[in-house]
Amino acid sequence: MEEKGGKQSVGLVKPETVTFDSVELECGRKLSPVDVCYETYGRLNSDKDNAVLVAHALSGDAHAAGLHSDDDKKPGWWDIFIGPGKGIDTDKYFVICSNIIGGCKGSSGPGSINKKDNKPYGTAFPPITVRDMVTVQKRLIDHLGIKSILAVIGGSLGGMQVLQWAVDYPAAVKSAIVIASTAKLSAQGIAFNAVGREAITSDPNWFKGDYYDKGKKPEKGLAIARMIGHITYLSEDVIEQKFGRKTKSDKDTDSGDFPARVDFTQDEYEIESYLSYQGDSFVKRFDANSYLYISKAMDAFDLYQDYGSLEKAFKNVKSGFLVVSYTSDWLFPAWQSKEIVKALKANNIPVTYYNIKSESGHDSFLVEKEISELEGVVSPFLDNIRGG
Amino acid sequence: MEEKGGKQSVGLVKPETVTFDSVELECGRKLSPVDVCYETYGRLNSDKDNAVLVAHALSGDAHAAGLHSDDDKKPGWWDIFIGPGKGIDTDKYFVICSNIIGGCKGSSGPGSINKKDNKPYGTAFPPITVRDMVTVQKRLIDHLGIKSILAVIGGSLGGMQVLQWAVDYPAAVKSAIVIASTAKLSAQGIAFNAVGREAITSDPNWFKGDYYDKGKKPEKGLAIARMIGHITYLSEDVIEQKFGRKTKSDKDTDSGDFPARVDFTQDEYEIESYLSYQGDSFVKRFDANSYLYISKAMDAFDLYQDYGSLEKAFKNVKSGFLVVSYTSDWLFPAWQSKEIVKALKANNIPVTYYNIKSESGHDSFLVEKEISELEGVVSPFLDNIRGG
Repeated sequence: MEEKGGKQSVGLVKPETVTFDSVELECGRKLSPVDVCYETYGRLNSDKDNAVLVAHALSGDAHAAGLHSDDDKKPGWWDIFIGPGKGIDTDKYFVICSNIIGGCKGSSGPGSINKKDNKPYGTAFPPITVRDMVTVQKRLIDHLGIKSILAVIGGSLGGMQVLQWAVDYPAAVKSAIVIASTAKLSAQGIAFNAVGREAITSDPNWFKGDYYDKGKKPEKGLAIARMIGHITYLSEDVIEQKFGRKTKSDKDTDSGDFPARVDFTQDEYEIESYLSYQGDSFVKRFDANSYLYISKAMDAFDLYQDYGSLEKAFKNVKSGFLVVSYTSDWLFPAWQSKEIVKALKANNIPVTYYNIKSESGHDSFLVEKEISELEGVVSPFLDNIRGG
Repeated sequence: MEEKGGKQSVGLVKPETVTFDSVELECGRKLSPVDVCYETYGRLNSDKDNAVLVAHALSGDAHAAGLHSDDDKKPGWWDIFIGPGKGIDTDKYFVICSNIIGGCKGSSGPGSINKKDNKPYGTAFPPITVRDMVTVQKRLIDHLGIKSILAVIGGSLGGMQVLQWAVDYPAAVKSAIVIASTAKLSAQGIAFNAVGREAITSDPNWFKGDYYDKGKKPEKGLAIARMIGHITYLSEDVIEQKFGRKTKSDKDTDSGDFPARVDFTQDEYEIESYLSYQGDSFVKRFDANSYLYISKAMDAFDLYQDYGSLEKAFKNVKSGFLVVSYTSDWLFPAWQSKEIVKALKANNIPVTYYNIKSESGHDSFLVEKEISELEGVVSPFLDNIRGG
């Protein structure tokens, strides 16, 4: 499984599931039982002090690296970054990634069975927050017998979880790596999320969330939500360079031979086909209700308001920080990262900040052509924390 | 009808309609008959050389200024800019604004009756282009007995029409005022339009465009398209300032008294309510098929490709130009206007360019707080053209 540059894949991996009797959520309700699906790569050392916890973004899952089978077509979502010799080097670190609560990839979420009536929860699933995601991850870490995590790392919604970890469990987090994230989503971010939710709940196949036994799902609505998301994850430049105004075929528009009806469902430009493909493939692997719950959690995340100010939020933080933003990310713009850095510094918390020049927008931390830049800052930061 | 600063309203106005036997469209098909709904403000002078043609944007119509009745709640869409003493001073100029072909406010469009079967066209309406819009406007100008227009002015899609006017009818256009526009839509712009169309055509009430006799319309889909559009018309700053993370009510989220089900259809943040309101009010006044046709025309507009280059497109242009962009407009960014200016200059065409500092994004040319800036550049430009 040798890859270019001597970097290797973690190879075959197997997701595991741990079930907790119950977890108390921020809303005051108890969720019971709570499944947590997770994967690990590398080995936990005898001191149990080399664990790196990876927090995933909206559409991610526990499968961050490696393959589930030999004929698996796609490796884990951060396989370019996690493995022997890679940004998070599994020869050095014990890497853990778990599916967030509210998700649809093995951890308890709206598609899980509600004990009360033996049916999927749907919208009877309690509202969840970023803090709830972190609460459950802490239970997992405890279950694995780890007292102190070397680093919690994540991008986007993953970065929100990292911030919450550092705030809620200062003694358990040696370092925190926040990538392309924010301490509160912008109003523009909320707006895009809101339209995505509107598309899902407007889909007649949503059935107020109870579609699981209907033989149909709100696929159109979820696809539209994903398409909107995808536009916001890309920079204007990368859309222009990658697709521009290229059309799908070199059809002769001068022939005058138009069909009797205009087919508005047909994609004309490459960017349209790309978005349609992204939308269609997403609905095959993701649950619409999970999208609703998780996007709501993103909207609600606000360390400024929760603590009166961001500076106050970080008052008890003990972790060292690495904060990374991307110049082409307009959804989670650099100024939001800079506010995090400023508030950390005001608390005398050691923080390293990079605003990485990139072309790929918010998705930069997931894109192969940009990953060496991230590796270049994360890898030495981890080495330093490990040595220190 | 005195308004602040001595500026006045044009008062009561009445839309008129002219019907042409047929118009040959760019696709090669003939449309027959063709209704054109238009309004005029001010008086055409005896030399018939004081006409200003206003081209409207995607959601606009012929009703640019004044009121339709004494109890009209809303004046025309550009009432802040057209009237005695205003940016386009109706004491000096004879202002004409017509609904574009493909529209739904009095001019022929997909909701019009198809002579062939006495039913609304739906998607049997031929595909239309920006050039078709301009062709029909030229017929209207001819009908009004005007040989030379003092100025054609428009923002966004209106600006595209202005560019096409200057290219197609160099002898008839003394000056051209292009605001917040482009000679070709960006791939990002196409992407947002495409998702809006997807929302409409995915709505089960669209019925492949034949919803007119169904007693229901693709309202949800059109509302979503409009919501997406609205986010892109606003700047990140203006959304942040106007709405930020303000919630609709000061509900006590610490009460733990959550309902048994999460209601994802309820708006929580003010930005969500604002977008919902914009979406809902739009579907009352706009036809979903028109949205499809017009957004497609915007996507297809490309003077670069039509003529080999923008410089070549402007080869025969005779009009003097005023080009205006807005610093906060990310949908039609300033660099696109700068390319227009550069290509005009390469043809030795006189051009004045302003990149106006603004906060209101693409919508800046429609917003009261920004309008004095536009007035400050358009009014002297028109005076100069009129005197020259």
